Amino acid sequence: MATLGDIAVSAAFNIVGAFAFLLAFALLRLQPINDRVYFPKWYISGKRSSPMHAGGSFVGKFVNLNFKTYFTFLNWMPQALKMSEAEIIDHAGLDSAVFLRIYLLGLKIFVPMAAVALVVLIPVNVSDGTLYSLNKDLVISNIDKLSISNVRSKSIKFFFHISMQYLFTFWTCYLLYKEYSRVASMRLRFLASQGRRAEQFTVLVRNIPHVSGRSTSDSVESFFRKNHPEHYLCHQAVYNANKFARLVQKRDRLQNWLDYNQLKFERNPEKRPRRKNCFLGLWGEKNDSIDFYKHQIKELDKKLTMERQKVLKDPKAIMPAAFVSFNSRWGAAVCAQTQQSKNPTLWLTKWAPEPRDIYWKNLAIPFVSLTIRRFIISVAVFALIFFYMIPIAFVQSLANLEGLEKVAPFLTPVTELKFIKSFLQGFLPGLALKIFLFALPRALMIMSKVEGYVAKSTLERKAAAKYYYFMLVNVFLGSIIAGTAFQQLRAFLHESATQIPRTIGVSIPMKATFFITYIMVDGWAGIASEILRLKPLVKFHLKNMLIVKTERDRVKAMDPGSVDFPETLPSLQLYFLLGLVYAVVTPILLPFILVFFAFAYFVYRHQVINVYNQEYESAGAFWPHVHRCIIWSLLISQLLLMGLLSTKEALSSTPLIIVLPILTLAFHNYCKNRFEPAFRKYPLEEAMDKDLEDRPSESDVKLKSFLADAYLHPIFRSFEEVESVELRVDKRRAHSPSPSRSSSSSSDDDSHHLEDEPSEEEDEPSQEEAVLPLHYEYEPPSDAYHYVAEVLSNVYEYGTEPYHN
Amino acid sequence: MATLGDIAVSAAFNIVGAFAFLLAFALLRLQPINDRVYFPKWYISGKRSSPMHAGGSFVGKFVNLNFKTYFTFLNWMPQALKMSEAEIIDHAGLDSAVFLRIYLLGLKIFVPMAAVALVVLIPVNVSDGTLYSLNKDLVISNIDKLSISNVRSKSIKFFFHISMQYLFTFWTCYLLYKEYSRVASMRLRFLASQGRRAEQFTVLVRNIPHVSGRSTSDSVESFFRKNHPEHYLCHQAVYNANKFARLVQKRDRLQNWLDYNQLKFERNPEKRPRRKNCFLGLWGEKNDSIDFYKHQIKELDKKLTMERQKVLKDPKAIMPAAFVSFNSRWGAAVCAQTQQSKNPTLWLTKWAPEPRDIYWKNLAIPFVSLTIRRFIISVAVFALIFFYMIPIAFVQSLANLEGLEKVAPFLTPVTELKFIKSFLQGFLPGLALKIFLFALPRALMIMSKVEGYVAKSTLERKAAAKYYYFMLVNVFLGSIIAGTAFQQLRAFLHESATQIPRTIGVSIPMKATFFITYIMVDGWAGIASEILRLKPLVKFHLKNMLIVKTERDRVKAMDPGSVDFPETLPSLQLYFLLGLVYAVVTPILLPFILVFFAFAYFVYRHQVINVYNQEYESAGAFWPHVHRCIIWSLLISQLLLMGLLSTKEALSSTPLIIVLPILTLAFHNYCKNRFEPAFRKYPLEEAMDKDLEDRPSESDVKLKSFLADAYLHPIFRSFEEVESVELRVDKRRAHSPSPSRSSSSSSDDDSHHLEDEPSEEEDEPSQEEAVLPLHYEYEPPSDAYHYVAEVLSNVYEYGTEPYHN
Repeated sequence: MATLGDIAVSAAFNIVGAFAFLLAFALLRLQPINDRVYFPKWYISGKRSSPMHAGGSFVGKFVNLNFKTYFTFLNWMPQALKMSEAEIIDHAGLDSAVFLRIYLLGLKIFVPMAAVALVVLIPVNVSDGTLYSLNKDLVISNIDKLSISNVRSKSIKFFFHISMQYLFTFWTCYLLYKEYSRVASMRLRFLASQGRRAEQFTVLVRNIPHVSGRSTSDSVESFFRKNHPEHYLCHQAVYNANKFARLVQKRDRLQNWLDYNQLKFERNPEKRPRRKNCFLGLWGEKNDSIDFYKHQIKELDKKLTMERQKVLKDPKAIMPAAFVSFNSRWGAAVCAQTQQSKNPTLWLTKWAPEPRDIYWKNLAIPFVSLTIRRFIISVAVFALIFFYMIPIAFVQSLANLEGLEKVAPFLTPVTELKFIKSFLQGFLPGLALKIFLFALPRALMIMSKVEGYVAKSTLERKAAAKYYYFMLVNVFLGSIIAGTAFQQLRAFLHESATQIPRTIGVSIPMKATFFITYIMVDGWAGIASEILRLKPLVKFHLKNMLIVKTERDRVKAMDPGSVDFPETLPSLQLYFLLGLVYAVVTPILLPFILVFFAFAYFVYRHQVINVYNQEYESAGAFWPHVHRCIIWSLLISQLLLMGLLSTKEALSSTPLIIVLPILTLAFHNYCKNRFEPAFRKYPLEEAMDKDLEDRPSESDVKLKSFLADAYLHPIFRSFEEVESVELRVDKRRAHSPSPSRSSSSSSDDDSHHLEDEPSEEEDEPSQEEAVLPLHYEYEPPSDAYHYVAEVLSNVYEYGTEPYHN
Repeated sequence: MATLGDIAVSAAFNIVGAFAFLLAFALLRLQPINDRVYFPKWYISGKRSSPMHAGGSFVGKFVNLNFKTYFTFLNWMPQALKMSEAEIIDHAGLDSAVFLRIYLLGLKIFVPMAAVALVVLIPVNVSDGTLYSLNKDLVISNIDKLSISNVRSKSIKFFFHISMQYLFTFWTCYLLYKEYSRVASMRLRFLASQGRRAEQFTVLVRNIPHVSGRSTSDSVESFFRKNHPEHYLCHQAVYNANKFARLVQKRDRLQNWLDYNQLKFERNPEKRPRRKNCFLGLWGEKNDSIDFYKHQIKELDKKLTMERQKVLKDPKAIMPAAFVSFNSRWGAAVCAQTQQSKNPTLWLTKWAPEPRDIYWKNLAIPFVSLTIRRFIISVAVFALIFFYMIPIAFVQSLANLEGLEKVAPFLTPVTELKFIKSFLQGFLPGLALKIFLFALPRALMIMSKVEGYVAKSTLERKAAAKYYYFMLVNVFLGSIIAGTAFQQLRAFLHESATQIPRTIGVSIPMKATFFITYIMVDGWAGIASEILRLKPLVKFHLKNMLIVKTERDRVKAMDPGSVDFPETLPSLQLYFLLGLVYAVVTPILLPFILVFFAFAYFVYRHQVINVYNQEYESAGAFWPHVHRCIIWSLLISQLLLMGLLSTKEALSSTPLIIVLPILTLAFHNYCKNRFEPAFRKYPLEEAMDKDLEDRPSESDVKLKSFLADAYLHPIFRSFEEVESVELRVDKRRAHSPSPSRSSSSSSDDDSHHLEDEPSEEEDEPSQEEAVLPLHYEYEPPSDAYHYVAEVLSNVYEYGTEPYHN
């Protein structure tokens, strides 16, 4: 049991650590050389150009010599707060703005709660003082004296705790309601304010039945012409291009190596780079690297051409799925929300995600296997959640000092030092947990991908949900129970429904110190390291040294990615859970959570404004998930308090508390009915409004050309572009560069190097012929083809609009 | 513990009882005077006219004198089987045909199951014979020797039971799948074969927002004109006519009394009937009855006129709900399945039930209160389920002989008689339960009505579901546990999740005798009394004597009503549960269930063909509910077997059985996805097919007139008709009787007497003026009014078509 002193040491450590990080951040971000690491968003939005090209001395291009700026190293905080919410939505999208609101919600919930709890409950807890008398027998930390454990059994004072639980529940629900309503209206306003976008008109149809002697395209065409005669416009078949995509990826990798070697050669022209030719270049004869990679790429290009032709010509490569577009938002809304076929497992429709949100790989999964996949993954997640705990519990029992001394008795002299003891007790358990949690999100993301969701946003939400379950069982329950009972699941199965909350409830106050250190290590330090961006910093400079040749390579190297929702959302939700559970039990924990929320709010506001560049826009689609998690946290806190009080022989209080979960569930139900449809469905009223607004300016023909290949697999698009570039370069035709070239960088990350490659000049005549059949094959409504040329620029403009203008 | 002998006595009793009933039925149904009680369906469908008017002697009109027919008193059974399923659908509707299929499904499931279980399991159980050795200590019935209890603990023989459970589960699932698929396709075919019906074009819209300065009608009109411009046709406002309906009901009652008194006077002209005028006619001065009722009716008519004008003129009487009709099935299907408004709690749409299926009273419930109502009712149902048990347990402990002797020791000499003892033990517990269950369905129906469902079919389904939960907890669990632990709920809360199935499982084999008697008393005798129709028989003859004056009165008196789904479905499902649970544990129970299913199938086939006249047609909408209940029964049987085996120390079998519930749930999920949408949604493909079929023959104008007042509250329609009759009678205008007059009897049960009343001749001129504004007020699209006259006949024809041609 850690004492208050231990916690103070740990807190000091963490505060010093966080300040060190902040200081490092302040110093690093002021250096022009790091500008692209700490402000990439502004480069991407085009509002900032490289400071290295700006005036000043040569050193000044890399190091900030204006020493005045170093004294104001915390001034990013007020700067981060300057931007209004509307501006953030404009600048970074609604997802980011809504994400920031979660931290704000945390502050709104916990600031008054902490104030009330500290003022009311701490005096109540301290005044009773059972623990003083028990002190001799039990090892009890000082913090326990401030907690509910200190109140005598059967005391009338539990009335305070119960009324506080009521107060906190109502307060939380009130804020949740307000927030849900606000986010829902923000979402609707955001959707309404958007211009013409392909996903507004498009529905993803899956499980298209196979009719012998008829292509999928024909089936789709005739089905929708018949059943949506006034609204159907066109459709885009879905190709299974996974193998092709893998090859393109491989080519990219080889290209990177080639770039690296060419750069090396340029810088050091007297020595041509060489590599061993066997087993990943580890041994064997040495060859010329540049020739080797050029040869490999050429081989691969042949394969690519063949594979592409196979995909486009083989009817088996066309999946029984299609993106069906309508001539009005109303038509698409109708199709997405209704059942199409007599057999409800065929012709399944749902809103198409926006093109850049689609996870193309999963579109190739046959629909029938989805159920089985989901079943298998849910079993796997269950196993993961309940067996991951065993190593954690083992490590934690090590990290427990007594355990450590038993395992490694030779360490005793060291661990007996007071300072090191405090450090270990305060720091180790949290750290151990953190290390275990590191590999997890990737595993969960892979699981979600196997489940077969087709939108990246859904994948991230599902991965986040799995991670939350994991944290709930392993971090929360695991930390509370593991010390007392190893095999929770087994224990719970053999315990009665009333016994379970008691078992957990009674351990809750004892674990407060652990969670306080956890909040500091995971929360505070995590946020501080978030702002420092150490990994991207190193990565950027490495890439800059090794492979960056052109400005576009540099842009790619600085790519900041999106906010990591699958990891941040669950840990956020864990803090909500901790706050709600301990608000009544050990209110001294609340200030630590408050510091986390405030600090994280500043940091993420800064990051969202200056760093992250969202890959897709789901218009806050994750909010229902966040809301549900907080409601669950409330329920858990109520049940655990009930269990805890029943061990305190305050059984008469049970009926008083049992009302709360019922009310909370009723509230949740109400919110679900009231707000959730705004996140799942597109109301016809809204669709009609938008349609009427746009109708004068839109003709069907224009719309058709706009939609024609908005939902083409990006791999085809990039390849096609590559070829047009190749043609241009090779045949010296009088092409004026297409306006979309520079702006299309985000949609064809995979192969944009090709454009600038002198090595690509050896062109094969067979490739040119392959271009034309490609168009004739995949252009779904053949008459739309004529518009493709003029349209492509529209599409790209649309596809990348929020980033690149 | 009842012995095999006790059960034989009980079975003999019940068989004799059932035969007595059958004999009585055979005798009664052959009497011409009872013809309308046992064959009303044929009268209603017009294929049979009163045998009393047929030739023959005077006595022959009332009593069957053809003695040959008495010898073939069971010949209704083959007759009942003669009709094919397609004919039954034609004759009695799909609901009835699907209802019969449940019994057939029971036979299909349990016949092979019983054969296999008896052949395989009984020898296995008998051969071990632990119970022979224990016999001295425990009171064990003979039946237990045939059950799983007889198998030694840890015996390898449990392998037989487990593999049987697997076999039975797969067999049941296979049949369930086939049946679901069959019923779903029957439903789709039935819906596709129906002609033009109002509900195909109509959607019920609720929670229409109130806009100040605008009537609900205007709001509806403008909202749907805007959001469904190509499909919206017209709408019908919903009036809160509950008070008006109550008055009409009261008037009916008075009219009945008047009829009765007038009849009395006619038969006995010298003595005018008189009644006391205070407190329900129990004391006070005596008045002339005929005058009294005539006066009362006149008073009431004034009130009625006022109330009707109030309803039609007061905007507050218009509920924020409407029946919105579309010009195509496609448009209606789209509107029913999509979200209309930005605020998902406004403009809620769902399919309109067919007009005769609507429970008008609940349309007047404000939508906001529905959530609260449902919450309150679910608490009430919970309380009812868990506190109803206390009196049952008490009565059962009385019915238990030892208990009875303790409570009433003076009965000991009587109960010690062997015969009476057997009778009591075999008969009493089942009877006690049955009496308690008698009042319940009405209570549950009232609860469902309070919940506010607007369709009678939904009300019946919900009441049936509640009843099933009740039976599950009280009849099934209650009978198993009550003897050992009074307060189940409390006990379960304090037991672990693994302990609960053990506690129940271990008592299961011991209660087999009880359930066998229950099946005989409730099932066999219940079915026998079902075919005898004692209550309707008495009622019909009483009415015939007292108030029937015209042929139409007689038709009304014979009204057989519908099959009582809320009561028959749950008890059916209970038999499925018993069969599945005991199939492995005590297979000797299966033949009793088989007898029930076979007998019930014959009886209900006879009743559906000859007696019942369904009030509405839901096209088998209750099937998903039936399916779900059988799946739940399977799950329960698996869990209980698991618990039972774990008490037999066959713990190693647990992993073998735990796979089954998971597979069963997966199967259920699959069926739900595959078939349930056919019962909930109307696929666009289907709607479009029907639309295309009908399009040539339908114009919008004709459709509009067809739909104009299909969804008018029947109370207005009947009143309106009354008035036109009054006008005709009173003003001696040259009206030719409308063709709809005689056929509209079922849709205006409440007041059809008025037509033939000479007492109605005192007409008030004010009433005539009230007629016209009535039309102008409620006719929703005012131009549709011109068609009303020609249309009314259509509407009535449509509304009553299945009954009266």
